[in-house]
Amino acid sequence: MTDARTAAEAYFHSLEARDWTALTGLLAEEVVYEMPQTRERITGRDRFLRFNQEYPGDWHLAVYRLVAEGRRAAAWIDARVAKEHQDACVWLEFDEAGRVVRVVDFWPEAYEPPAGREHLAERY
Amino acid sequence: MTDARTAAEAYFHSLEARDWTALTGLLAEEVVYEMPQTRERITGRDRFLRFNQEYPGDWHLAVYRLVAEGRRAAAWIDARVAKEHQDACVWLEFDEAGRVVRVVDFWPEAYEPPAGREHLAERY
Repeated sequence: MTDARTAAEAYFHSLEARDWTALTGLLAEEVVYEMPQTRERITGRDRFLRFNQEYPGDWHLAVYRLVAEGRRAAAWIDARVAKEHQDACVWLEFDEAGRVVRVVDFWPEAYEPPAGREHLAERY
Repeated sequence: MTDARTAAEAYFHSLEARDWTALTGLLAEEVVYEMPQTRERITGRDRFLRFNQEYPGDWHLAVYRLVAEGRRAAAWIDARVAKEHQDACVWLEFDEAGRVVRVVDFWPEAYEPPAGREHLAERY
């Protein structure tokens, strides 16, 4: 099989390039995509492709960090729409053939820190 | 050096066990800890130890998924305080000796999904 690092890089590259043919070849037919923040789940390659094709805005993805091991990979990506940036943490699982069978995308939003740790932490 | 997987497992184990001696041995003196949601940064082993020692509540950490490669690891953890659960995505970097030099903790919160993808996504 393709190693997890190569498969993960190809996954993000095909998304950024809107290369739906390449992306289709990287996905298992039964791929499941989940977003824990909103508890949304998209099941199947056709729906997942359509989700990406319909996603609004001129979005761009850049992989900031990628860790791959066995049939798994984790990526910290920078997603940009116009001048807005948002980090995401993406967890990928691959099948025996190296196709993506599961994607879990954390899309964390910013918030204010709780009080009580100002003596230890600086803001950046 | 200790491999990244073993070092990452030891890191979470020492936190969960409140084994501050073990944790101290796993951390580089110049370790930097960041939380992107609040843009907080804690610099140095002493402050980072104190941050964990002072963290309120009877918190417990369980590693749900761990991916390690080279000098890096990524973990999806379940953090529990009483009956409240929160997922976190933790990015670890190790120095040549296998000590933790950087920790980035994403602590994503839940929110409602945007409209327009109900035809593709189910809620779970």
